[in-house]
Amino acid sequence: MSEWPDPSSHSAELYARAKRVLPGGVSRLLTYNAPYPFYVRSGAGSRVTDVDGTVRVDHVNNFASLIHGHAHPEIVAAVTDALGRGTAFALPTALEVEMAELLAERYETFERVRYCNTGTEAVMLAIKAARAATGRPKIAKFEGGYHGMYDYAEVSLDSNPDTWGNDPRSVPYARGTPQGVTEDVVTLPFNHPEAAERILRAHAEGLAGILVDVAPSYFGMIPISAPMVEMLHRVADETGAVLIADEVISLRLGYRGGAARFGLRPQLTTAAKLIGGGFPVACVAGRAEVMEVFSHEGGRPALPSSGTFTANPIGLTAGLTAMRLLTEESFERLETLGTLARSLLTEAFAAAGVPGQVTGVGSMFSLHMTTRPIVDHRSAYPRPEETAAMRALQGELLRRGHVIAPKGSGFISTATSEADLESLAEATSGALRTLALAA
Amino acid sequence: MSEWPDPSSHSAELYARAKRVLPGGVSRLLTYNAPYPFYVRSGAGSRVTDVDGTVRVDHVNNFASLIHGHAHPEIVAAVTDALGRGTAFALPTALEVEMAELLAERYETFERVRYCNTGTEAVMLAIKAARAATGRPKIAKFEGGYHGMYDYAEVSLDSNPDTWGNDPRSVPYARGTPQGVTEDVVTLPFNHPEAAERILRAHAEGLAGILVDVAPSYFGMIPISAPMVEMLHRVADETGAVLIADEVISLRLGYRGGAARFGLRPQLTTAAKLIGGGFPVACVAGRAEVMEVFSHEGGRPALPSSGTFTANPIGLTAGLTAMRLLTEESFERLETLGTLARSLLTEAFAAAGVPGQVTGVGSMFSLHMTTRPIVDHRSAYPRPEETAAMRALQGELLRRGHVIAPKGSGFISTATSEADLESLAEATSGALRTLALAA
Repeated sequence: MSEWPDPSSHSAELYARAKRVLPGGVSRLLTYNAPYPFYVRSGAGSRVTDVDGTVRVDHVNNFASLIHGHAHPEIVAAVTDALGRGTAFALPTALEVEMAELLAERYETFERVRYCNTGTEAVMLAIKAARAATGRPKIAKFEGGYHGMYDYAEVSLDSNPDTWGNDPRSVPYARGTPQGVTEDVVTLPFNHPEAAERILRAHAEGLAGILVDVAPSYFGMIPISAPMVEMLHRVADETGAVLIADEVISLRLGYRGGAARFGLRPQLTTAAKLIGGGFPVACVAGRAEVMEVFSHEGGRPALPSSGTFTANPIGLTAGLTAMRLLTEESFERLETLGTLARSLLTEAFAAAGVPGQVTGVGSMFSLHMTTRPIVDHRSAYPRPEETAAMRALQGELLRRGHVIAPKGSGFISTATSEADLESLAEATSGALRTLALAA
Repeated sequence: MSEWPDPSSHSAELYARAKRVLPGGVSRLLTYNAPYPFYVRSGAGSRVTDVDGTVRVDHVNNFASLIHGHAHPEIVAAVTDALGRGTAFALPTALEVEMAELLAERYETFERVRYCNTGTEAVMLAIKAARAATGRPKIAKFEGGYHGMYDYAEVSLDSNPDTWGNDPRSVPYARGTPQGVTEDVVTLPFNHPEAAERILRAHAEGLAGILVDVAPSYFGMIPISAPMVEMLHRVADETGAVLIADEVISLRLGYRGGAARFGLRPQLTTAAKLIGGGFPVACVAGRAEVMEVFSHEGGRPALPSSGTFTANPIGLTAGLTAMRLLTEESFERLETLGTLARSLLTEAFAAAGVPGQVTGVGSMFSLHMTTRPIVDHRSAYPRPEETAAMRALQGELLRRGHVIAPKGSGFISTATSEADLESLAEATSGALRTLALAA
């Protein structure tokens, strides 16, 4: 076990400096651990080493983006080779064509691809594309679904029992969110197809698009149900709303993506994270007729889009290398590892005698400090004591050499080993026992 | 002169493939040249080489982002060294502290820094921060000002004589833009302080922030006037609106940035492009009390922000290297080169006997196919024949070995030489003569 927290550590010293120049001392909320985060020096495969020399197994993999773990040798070699030829141009390169061809070949609904840089940008562009294609203003999304920082996509991300109402209300996420934003977002309950259909139909006239993650990461990666998929196809078809799959995370659920795994046929898809091989690469992709909104061929596009680093050759080099390494066999292995992780972690709760459960699908897992059935945002929504227990577990796991996300989730990479997962399960049961004794 | 366009070239072949997978065959509108764009194989210093082996001088430098030109050896070396240690973590690194310290030391108003990945994200976060700090919904911006792809920031970007009204109207940019967006944007005329003040005061109650670029790139990099700066300080102070300087481009106007050059003291600033050394790095920075909206220290932040690739070590390594290379002497040199470019290009118009002018400031220049005085979006707004002439000039310059932006602008780097600019001026006068004869 490492000595964390330790006020004399290099990490503690860096955090003291950080607090003088960064709000709250951090750059991303989910990188913080009280009383201070540990700072990384390097990563290799499934391991990260901090600035004090402590090595830990990283189960976060930068929130699902590092599908091959840290510093995969082939990606490092390809990017090193590319660096000397320049990192960004206001001109196209062959790579943007090669990547789009690979994506179009692999994902059935990706007839056309428009690049951008981040998942946040991809979701913003997809929503704008749905509006441009339909001329309508409203977007439907699911309560508790995380889709990046665009105001409209953030609505009801963290609605709570005080604000969420009976049918989901559209609750603003940031202070000062304009009223027009919440008015133009229709919030739906996940995996409640009858209620969701009723709400969608009430807003059918102004509905530009329906945004859905087939296994929403913020409430336990619960897969979308078959009746939900059927309803979304039917309602999108009948109302003319554009069905948008946010696959920024769920693309890792299969060689052909997460939507295909669950039979969802979106008109638009957002992709990011794994397609960049550890660099910021993102895109909106979809049916040619909807994607036409981006085209200049008929004059000024209905939706002009650009971006200084869009389709830069470094990101595309890393992404192409990562995607080519991701074979059908890689997905079989990721699936096996995910099943093993969920099974071992479930046993860890049992072995420690602490109430809890493990949800997730494919290469993703999510721990919960409750045994009540988790089916959506509301059932997953942690009570204060569950949040505190999860934070304590996550901190205890850090001391035992394992990094999971603050809310208890993990994303397995092809660099993860069975031994890494066995070690995580052992650390988890040990940590749960320690915490139960302390409570 | 190179053979462009040439239907048998590798570039033409790539474009034919691109049209099958990318809307309109491109990834960024401003990378397109009719009948097809040329594809880059590599860049070094001030030169780019295309896939057919043609070498050209690049005066675009990825729209102001490559302040040291292509593949600067020190940046390549630093990034190569960093690559093997991993490219992105859901954990902080020391680099995010070092970069923020450098920025805070260099730019007087950067008391706190919040990173993101692109200029689009930075402007979105700054607008959201102004709303979160004030609890008000409206943002004021200048007609014709470009600030990325966030709907609110895009309003009236390309308003035209049919839509702009007497006092500037808020005109949506993309088809399907929700009405709430235009209602929450107040559009101002640039460098018309009395009119702008009157409009601002009419919206004072709901005004969260005022977004300004001190030398707006889309209409000729005309510097902000002293009375305008004075008015903005006064009105922001009296109304409580947050003054936001968009320095994504203008940061290159001085060692202490563009706002400082013109005496503007913003509460928030957006930065991107040059601070990333050729990689996507961006931030919002500003006064500690406003930046507090991002902090988790008092509980849930008023404005939570995150992002998978935010503050990643590769971008920060490149950015820190680029920023350290950018000494006060670098800016003196960039200033000298900019003055030389504008002077030589002005002479080129005269030598060719073609009516035109050159605007710009610092290391930026902008060509116009008209002699009418350019002071704002409306006076810069090209008539159809001016747009056609500029496109023709830009195409002719491509054939003569020089790349400028389709609208006629250029951004000089520290790798640009006097000879590069002399060659550009010579090519320009030659091109203008050829086009005048053809007309």
